[in-house]
Amino acid sequence: MHTIINRRDLDFLVFELLDAASLIERPRHADHSLDTFAAALDTAQAIATDHFAPHNRRSDEHEPQFDGQRVTLIPEVKAALRAYCDAGMLAASHDYTLGGMQLPSLLAQACSSLFKSANAATTSYPGLTLGNANVIHRFGTEAQKRRYLSSLLSGRFFGTMALTEPQAGSSLADIKTTATPNADGSYSIVGQKIFISAGDHELSENIVHLVLAKIPGGPPGVKGISLFIVPKRRVDDDGQVGEPNDVALAGLIHKMGWRGTTSTMLSFGEHGQCRGELVGEPHKGLSYMFHMMNEARIGVGLGAVMLGYRGYLASLAYARERPQGRSPSARDPQTPQQLLIEHADVRRMLLAQKAYVEGGYALCLYAARLVDDQKTGPDESTRRDAAALLDLLTPVVKSWPSQWCLEANSLAIQVHGGYGYTREYPVEQFYRDNRLNPIHEGTHGIQALDLLGRKAQMDQGATVALLAHRMQSTIDAAAALPELQGEARALQAALADVEQTLAVLRPVLAEDSERGLANASVFLEAFGHTVVAWIWLRQAVIASRALPTAEGADADFYRGKLHACRWFFGWELPRTQAQHALLRRLDDTPLTMATDWF
Amino acid sequence: MHTIINRRDLDFLVFELLDAASLIERPRHADHSLDTFAAALDTAQAIATDHFAPHNRRSDEHEPQFDGQRVTLIPEVKAALRAYCDAGMLAASHDYTLGGMQLPSLLAQACSSLFKSANAATTSYPGLTLGNANVIHRFGTEAQKRRYLSSLLSGRFFGTMALTEPQAGSSLADIKTTATPNADGSYSIVGQKIFISAGDHELSENIVHLVLAKIPGGPPGVKGISLFIVPKRRVDDDGQVGEPNDVALAGLIHKMGWRGTTSTMLSFGEHGQCRGELVGEPHKGLSYMFHMMNEARIGVGLGAVMLGYRGYLASLAYARERPQGRSPSARDPQTPQQLLIEHADVRRMLLAQKAYVEGGYALCLYAARLVDDQKTGPDESTRRDAAALLDLLTPVVKSWPSQWCLEANSLAIQVHGGYGYTREYPVEQFYRDNRLNPIHEGTHGIQALDLLGRKAQMDQGATVALLAHRMQSTIDAAAALPELQGEARALQAALADVEQTLAVLRPVLAEDSERGLANASVFLEAFGHTVVAWIWLRQAVIASRALPTAEGADADFYRGKLHACRWFFGWELPRTQAQHALLRRLDDTPLTMATDWF
Repeated sequence: MHTIINRRDLDFLVFELLDAASLIERPRHADHSLDTFAAALDTAQAIATDHFAPHNRRSDEHEPQFDGQRVTLIPEVKAALRAYCDAGMLAASHDYTLGGMQLPSLLAQACSSLFKSANAATTSYPGLTLGNANVIHRFGTEAQKRRYLSSLLSGRFFGTMALTEPQAGSSLADIKTTATPNADGSYSIVGQKIFISAGDHELSENIVHLVLAKIPGGPPGVKGISLFIVPKRRVDDDGQVGEPNDVALAGLIHKMGWRGTTSTMLSFGEHGQCRGELVGEPHKGLSYMFHMMNEARIGVGLGAVMLGYRGYLASLAYARERPQGRSPSARDPQTPQQLLIEHADVRRMLLAQKAYVEGGYALCLYAARLVDDQKTGPDESTRRDAAALLDLLTPVVKSWPSQWCLEANSLAIQVHGGYGYTREYPVEQFYRDNRLNPIHEGTHGIQALDLLGRKAQMDQGATVALLAHRMQSTIDAAAALPELQGEARALQAALADVEQTLAVLRPVLAEDSERGLANASVFLEAFGHTVVAWIWLRQAVIASRALPTAEGADADFYRGKLHACRWFFGWELPRTQAQHALLRRLDDTPLTMATDWF
Repeated sequence: MHTIINRRDLDFLVFELLDAASLIERPRHADHSLDTFAAALDTAQAIATDHFAPHNRRSDEHEPQFDGQRVTLIPEVKAALRAYCDAGMLAASHDYTLGGMQLPSLLAQACSSLFKSANAATTSYPGLTLGNANVIHRFGTEAQKRRYLSSLLSGRFFGTMALTEPQAGSSLADIKTTATPNADGSYSIVGQKIFISAGDHELSENIVHLVLAKIPGGPPGVKGISLFIVPKRRVDDDGQVGEPNDVALAGLIHKMGWRGTTSTMLSFGEHGQCRGELVGEPHKGLSYMFHMMNEARIGVGLGAVMLGYRGYLASLAYARERPQGRSPSARDPQTPQQLLIEHADVRRMLLAQKAYVEGGYALCLYAARLVDDQKTGPDESTRRDAAALLDLLTPVVKSWPSQWCLEANSLAIQVHGGYGYTREYPVEQFYRDNRLNPIHEGTHGIQALDLLGRKAQMDQGATVALLAHRMQSTIDAAAALPELQGEARALQAALADVEQTLAVLRPVLAEDSERGLANASVFLEAFGHTVVAWIWLRQAVIASRALPTAEGADADFYRGKLHACRWFFGWELPRTQAQHALLRRLDDTPLTMATDWF
C-alpha cells in the first residue's frame, strides 16, 4: 500500500556503493554481519511502512492543538513512536551498555531514511531526541548522562534544540536568553525561543531542551554563548521526573507543511523558576551545538532526499498505470491512449526525479559512511581525512537535496497533472513538507557562506585537494570503462572548473570578503552539482562493472543507474559552466543594486 | 495595509513601454483619454485593495463547503464581486451597447492584474465568466446572446469552461460526454466533468457552463467535439431563470492552494433532463474553445505574474525592515545588526524576483497590447502580424511566468526565513496558489508541444522571423546606447541560437516528430528566456533614454530597471546555452530510458 523505498536501490547504496561489509571488520561492529544489517533495514522498513506511513496525511490534516493547557496530537503518532523505540531504533548506533545496537552510522542513517520517507513529521521527534542525546553523551558530565541519557535513548524523554530567538533568527550572536549562575551550581534561565520543533507535546514523560544562552558578563557575540540542559520538568539524581521547571508554551506556530511536528514558541523562566545545567565549559556552547547541528544538517539533507524519493515513487507508480493521450506521431484518435510513462516529457520528469533523489540519497549515505570512517576508521589518516571531507561536504549534504529534491517534488506533482495539485494524492504534501528544508538548520545562504567562506579555505585548501583526489580516482576508473569515458572527461573538466574558480576567488576573499562572498550561493550550487556528478559516476562505475553478469531485474536496475548518470551529466552538470563564468568575472550586480532602486 | 502593486511600474509598462496613448487614436477608444485610463486603474486598484486583498488569507483558511445541498463560501467573496461588477469591471473591454467601457485590452488586463494580485481565488469567478461571455459574444446566435450575454457581463450569471473529464485529462480527444439532438433543436447532455473551477456556488443567480461534448455519430477524436451552453438552471427567451437543468455537483475537490475557488466534479444529465444549446456548428467546438483557451492562457500567465509580484513586494518590505546578522566583513558582534536587504544574498533573491515578476508582467501586458493590435490595429498588416505574434507567444506567456514567478514565490519565502514558512505571513500562500499555474489550461509539457510542434513552424517559420525582426529593432536601439551594448550583443547571440536550434530541429520534426519533440520543454524554456530577455531590453532602452532627465524617485526607478535588465542578462540568459547544446545534439536520454529501468 505505502511504497516508501526502492529497496533494491537502498541495498545497492549500502552494500555495493558504500561497502557496508567492510564495516563488520571493525571491532565496534564485530558482532554484526550482513544478515544483522539486512535485518535492521527490514525491521525499519516494516515499522515505517506499517506505523509511520499510514498517518502521514492525517497528521497533516490534524495539526497539533493547544487548548491553553496541553498540546494534543493524533494518537497514531505516539503509537508509532512506541513501536520505533521498542525496536531500539533510537539507540541504533549507540553502545550496548546504553541499550544500543552499535550499528554503524551508515546503517543507522539508512534505517532512519525509511522513517523519514514514511512520515517526515513523526520522525522529527526521535530525530531531535537523538541529536540531543548525542550532545549529552559527548559533552555531558557523568551525572548528566545518568539523569538524561538512557531516558533519551529509550524514548522515555524526548529532546529538542532551542537556538533561535525572535529577534535573532540565523544570527546566533544576537541571542538574548540569559543564564545566571545560582549558588547550587545551577543556572537560572530567562528568555524566549522560537521555531522550537517538538517543543511541547505529551508523547514522552519529559522534554529535555538544549538551550543556547548567555551568562551575564561573558564575551559579546558568539564567543559568549553557553549551552544548557533545561528539562520541561525537573529530574532528580535518579532520573525521576519532578515538578515543572517554568518552561511555558507561548504558542504553536502554524506552518505550510511538516504540520505534524509541533513548532513552538517557548518562554523560559517567566516566573524566575527555570533551572538549567551547564553543558561543558561556559562560553563554548556554540561549538557543542555545532556538533549537534552538523549531524542535524545531514539529517535535513537526508530528509529532503526521502521526501523527494517518496514523490518519485508515487509519480512513477502513477505514470505506469494512468493512460493519457497519444504520442505525437499517432494520428488516429481511435487507438488506445498510451500510458503516461510512454510520453517523452513524462519520462524526462521521472528521470530528473530519479537523478535528483538517488543522487542525493547516495550523497547523504556517503556522508554517513564518512561519519563511520571518522569514528571507527582503522587508522589515524583515515579518520582525519573522513572528518575533513565530512566538514567540507556538510553544507552540500544539507543544501543540495533541499534544493533539488524539492524540485523533484514539484515534478512529481507535474507528472500527476491536476490530480497532483489535489489533497487526494500524496505528492502535494511532500512538496509542502520539503519546502522547509532550504530554511531550517541554516538557510541556503548560510550554507553557502559556510562552504565558500570557511570550508573551501580550510587548511589552505588541503581538504578541497583531498576531495579532488577522491574524485580523480573515480574519473580514472570511469575512463577505463568505454561507456563512461565521456562522463569521465566531463567530470574532469567540472573539477578543473571548481579549482579554477577557487583560484580566482581566494585572493578576493582574502582582500574583500564582502565582494568575495557576494555570490557564495552560486558557488554552492556549482560545487554541489559537481559533487553529485561525482557520486553519480561512482554509482555508474559499479553498475557498469556489474552489468555483464547481471540478469533480469538486476540488469535493468544497473542499466537504470547508467542511464540516470548519463542524464545527470547531459542535462544537469552543464549548468555549472554559466555559474563558473559568473563567479570568475566577480559579477557584482546584486551587490551594486542600491536599496532605493527596488 | 495590503500593497498589491508598484504602481510606478504598472504605469511605466502601460504608458511608457506599451504606449497606451496611441490606442486613444483608434475609433473604438476615441472617448478615452490618458485620464480615463488612469481612472480605470485607480478604481481597480482601490476595489482590489479594499475588497479583494483583505479576505485572501481567510478564503484560503475557509474553503468552500458542500453540505450535500449547497456550496457555501465566506461572505466576503460575494461582497467583493458585487463591488467589482458594480464598477463595470467585468465588461471593461466590451461594447458600450453591452454595458461595457470599450477599454483597450491592455487597460482591461492591467485592471485585471490588480485583482489577481489582491486575491487570485476570488478573481477566478469573474475571469471565467468573462472568458465564457467572450465565446458567446463571438460565436453565439442572437438569441443566445440575448439570453446570456448581458447577464454574464453584468455579473448576474457567472460562467465556467467545462472541458476536462476524469479519464481524459489533457487529452480532449478522449472525452466521453455526449450531446444527443432533441426534436426541439436542443441537445441532451450526459457526462462527467472534473476540475471545473467555479462549477458551483451561490454567488450569482445562475451558472452558465460551456461544455465540450460529442454528438453521437460524429467523427472520432478532436474533430468530433462540439460546444454547448449548459446553464445550471434553464433560462427562457427573456433571460428569466427557471427550473434546474439536471446539472449536479458530484463533489468538491480539495487543493493545495487556490482554495477559495470552488473546484468541482460535475455530473450532467444524471436524470436525462440536462439540456444544452449548440454553439456555432457541430464538431467545431474545439476551435471555439481555443478562442476562450488562448485568452485563458494569457490570464494564467498574468495570474502567475501577480502572485509572484505580490510575494516580491511582501519580501521587499520585510527585507527593508527586518534587522538580521552582519556583513561578512563586520567582525564586531556589538555593532547593530544590519537590515536583511543589506545582505548580498538577500539582494540577489530580491533582484531575481524583480527580474522574474517585472519581466513576466511586461510580457503579459505586451500580449494584451497584441490583442489590441489584432482587434483594432489601423491596418491589415498590423492586425495580421499582431495575431501571428500572439499565437506564437501564447505558450510562452502562459508557461514562463508559471515557472519563474513560482520560483519568485519560493525566493520570497526564503527571504523571510522561518517566518516565510509559517501561515502568519502571506508568502507561503502565494507559493501554494502559484503551483497550480504550470498545470491548468494546458500543462508546461502541452505548451511546449504547442510551441515547438505547431507555433514555431507556422507559415514556414514566417512568424518566428517576424518576432526576430521585432527583436532586431530592439537590439539596434540598444546597441546605440553605450550602457546597453553588452546586452544588445547578448540578445543578438541568443536570437541566433534560437534560429540555429530551429534549423537543426526542423528537418527532424518533419521526419520523426517523436524524436523532434522529445525535448520540446527544453526548447520552450530556452525560447522563453530569450523572449523575456528581449522584453527586458525593451524596458532598459526606455529607462536608459529617460534617465538623463529623470530626478529623485523616478531616476531610482529607471536605474532599477537597468540593473534588473543587467541581472537578467548576466544571470539568466546564459542558462540557454546549455539548453541549445542539448537540443542540437538531439539528446535522447529520456526517450531511450526503458520503462523497466526506472
